[in-house]
Amino acid sequence: MSIASYVVRSVDVVKEYQVEDFIKELLNIYNSNNKLIVVGAGRSGLIGRAFAMRLMHLGFNVYVLGDTVVPSLRPNDLMIAISGSGRTKLVITVAEAAKSVGAKVIAITTYVNSPLANIADMVVEVPGRTKISDQNDYYLRQLMGIYEPLAPLGTLFEVTTMIMLDAVVAELMVRLGKTEEDLKKLHANIEI
Amino acid sequence: MSIASYVVRSVDVVKEYQVEDFIKELLNIYNSNNKLIVVGAGRSGLIGRAFAMRLMHLGFNVYVLGDTVVPSLRPNDLMIAISGSGRTKLVITVAEAAKSVGAKVIAITTYVNSPLANIADMVVEVPGRTKISDQNDYYLRQLMGIYEPLAPLGTLFEVTTMIMLDAVVAELMVRLGKTEEDLKKLHANIEI
Amino acid sequence: MSIASYVVRSVDVVKEYQVEDFIKELLNIYNSNNKLIVVGAGRSGLIGRAFAMRLMHLGFNVYVLGDTVVPSLRPNDLMIAISGSGRTKLVITVAEAAKSVGAKVIAITTYVNSPLANIADMVVEVPGRTKISDQNDYYLRQLMGIYEPLAPLGTLFEVTTMIMLDAVVAELMVRLGKTEEDLKKLHANIEI
Amino acid sequence: MSIASYVVRSVDVVKEYQVEDFIKELLNIYNSNNKLIVVGAGRSGLIGRAFAMRLMHLGFNVYVLGDTVVPSLRPNDLMIAISGSGRTKLVITVAEAAKSVGAKVIAITTYVNSPLANIADMVVEVPGRTKISDQNDYYLRQLMGIYEPLAPLGTLFEVTTMIMLDAVVAELMVRLGKTEEDLKKLHANIEI
Repeated sequence: MSIASYVVRSVDVVKEYQVEDFIKELLNIYNSNNKLIVVGAGRSGLIGRAFAMRLMHLGFNVYVLGDTVVPSLRPNDLMIAISGSGRTKLVITVAEAAKSVGAKVIAITTYVNSPLANIADMVVEVPGRTKISDQNDYYLRQLMGIYEPLAPLGTLFEVTTMIMLDAVVAELMVRLGKTEEDLKKLHANIEI
Repeated sequence: MSIASYVVRSVDVVKEYQVEDFIKELLNIYNSNNKLIVVGAGRSGLIGRAFAMRLMHLGFNVYVLGDTVVPSLRPNDLMIAISGSGRTKLVITVAEAAKSVGAKVIAITTYVNSPLANIADMVVEVPGRTKISDQNDYYLRQLMGIYEPLAPLGTLFEVTTMIMLDAVVAELMVRLGKTEEDLKKLHANIEI
Repeated sequence: MSIASYVVRSVDVVKEYQVEDFIKELLNIYNSNNKLIVVGAGRSGLIGRAFAMRLMHLGFNVYVLGDTVVPSLRPNDLMIAISGSGRTKLVITVAEAAKSVGAKVIAITTYVNSPLANIADMVVEVPGRTKISDQNDYYLRQLMGIYEPLAPLGTLFEVTTMIMLDAVVAELMVRLGKTEEDLKKLHANIEI
Repeated sequence: MSIASYVVRSVDVVKEYQVEDFIKELLNIYNSNNKLIVVGAGRSGLIGRAFAMRLMHLGFNVYVLGDTVVPSLRPNDLMIAISGSGRTKLVITVAEAAKSVGAKVIAITTYVNSPLANIADMVVEVPGRTKISDQNDYYLRQLMGIYEPLAPLGTLFEVTTMIMLDAVVAELMVRLGKTEEDLKKLHANIEI
């Protein structure tokens, strides 16, 4: 199936030094036990939630915007904001609010010049056709060898981001010396 | 408006010794820093979430079933399960699961002989016409002087429970020596 | 308990002509089958969700911001935005977005001069100590005969709003000729 | 990255005739305008929500367990239940409830002999290391050439399911003659 093969190519395009910096920030937050909040709208928000669950299993002090229980953000806390276009209005509003209380913002986006990326302290670029189309988008499709929209709207960004974030989780397990058994212990035993 | 005046009478019917025991359990959890999870279906679940938010503002280690971030329950953790009828299937399943891992369960319900109440370690009775109707329900309506359904389904249970729980929050503030300023500090500064 | 008696007084202060106008707008939306979306942050959002559930039971085409399934807003759709202070940033952003696509906005708030009230096409004033304090707030407390914060932050606004909205549901049942049986038929048979 | 390459192999192992039957059921629901509800716990639930969003963009009458607005299920409605292990207790309880009201259940799971698969009218098998391990799991890993847990717990099931469901969306677009523009029209214009 072509979505899967696209994803393999996309993941290869993710810049390793950006992912390495991202992992280092996550390790800093883990070691300081500061709070981390994950933010995204629509399907990007769901991908963010899936990542937040794994961070909880790893022992992070992690929250999700939209959950009932969300504590106050403080200086040195971290927000991870996910938006393919980097132009999702509520995500930008929320990232600005995080900056104004002294928290750090990491943006995961396709567009390094987007409003969200401009607000952020750090950007992890993830390729993908996104809801907006422009030259840059065309270039990406060329690079990927994909000319037809095999998946609508932000699909490719979302799937690629999910795999990138799951790879980050695998890497965090190694660096934190955590086994699958450790994660199971923190996994919800009552959930829906 | 008659819903409000009903609520005044209902709240008077809540048994003070039950609320006192409930507050003591909450103080125990607060002092031990064990986890507390709030559970309910439909509108009862929303009332539970509103309570959970205030417990977070008070500094409790509180979670809500249905949130993305829900940690594993352990022995000595506490579940607060809200169901007017005491017969909501998923709430019962979840309360049984909590018991099986050694957590304590407090039921908030109209029916002291319901399946949920039978599972629970402690019951806080809250009057209300609930989704099921029976003799007991009729008795309550007599007691309240209400013969017409002025609010459909579980409405009166839900409103009375919300006010009872907010009164518990006010009392917890006094006993924990917390001011409104203290609560504001823990209130989400970024929320939707 | 004094929260309950406060609520009785508060509900008496709600302006009947505003509630009547609100009910008429709801009946218009019901009859046109246009969409209605309910919005609020924190505990106000939970109260909004409880109202949305009942509107669904009444047969409205209703949605909640924050749910997974939220369709596109169109001209003539309706947003109900709940904020005690009328200054909750994300609620204002969202109300502006609704106006920009031609939807109507009804604000439920304590402050008739707040930014949210200014954006809205219609305001339903609900008294309450809210998170911000000012002269107006002091006046309300005088009116209510309440000088001590018996419930922290937005509690009184939230409880009064819930009761006002449940009274609106009772009135809608009468005007739409719906029985409790009708509501039960539309009530979720699988829920958590 | 090895997660991505695993996914390519996994997707190849998905049985085309099962996916074809699944697509036919979805087209039936679309054409009848009956309701479809998506159910899953934890990260599987998030993947289900991402699928539900796209179905909404396609014009389906779709709901998600856990949303505020969830209508009553009726005979001929459809539940899609996602569980890698097929043993998630609340998902099984919910699938049984759906069957008892006459709705059809489609299970997406790794285990064709699991309790969930046994309840379901139709199964779509998706390979993946899941939270439980057994012979079958070992076999799958052999087949995939993967011996080390490169992603913890249900990760591979979740990612493979997401890609499979996004491929189903792409195929539904073709069969329903929908363009990306059509989807954009139904995409939320106000979301978080």
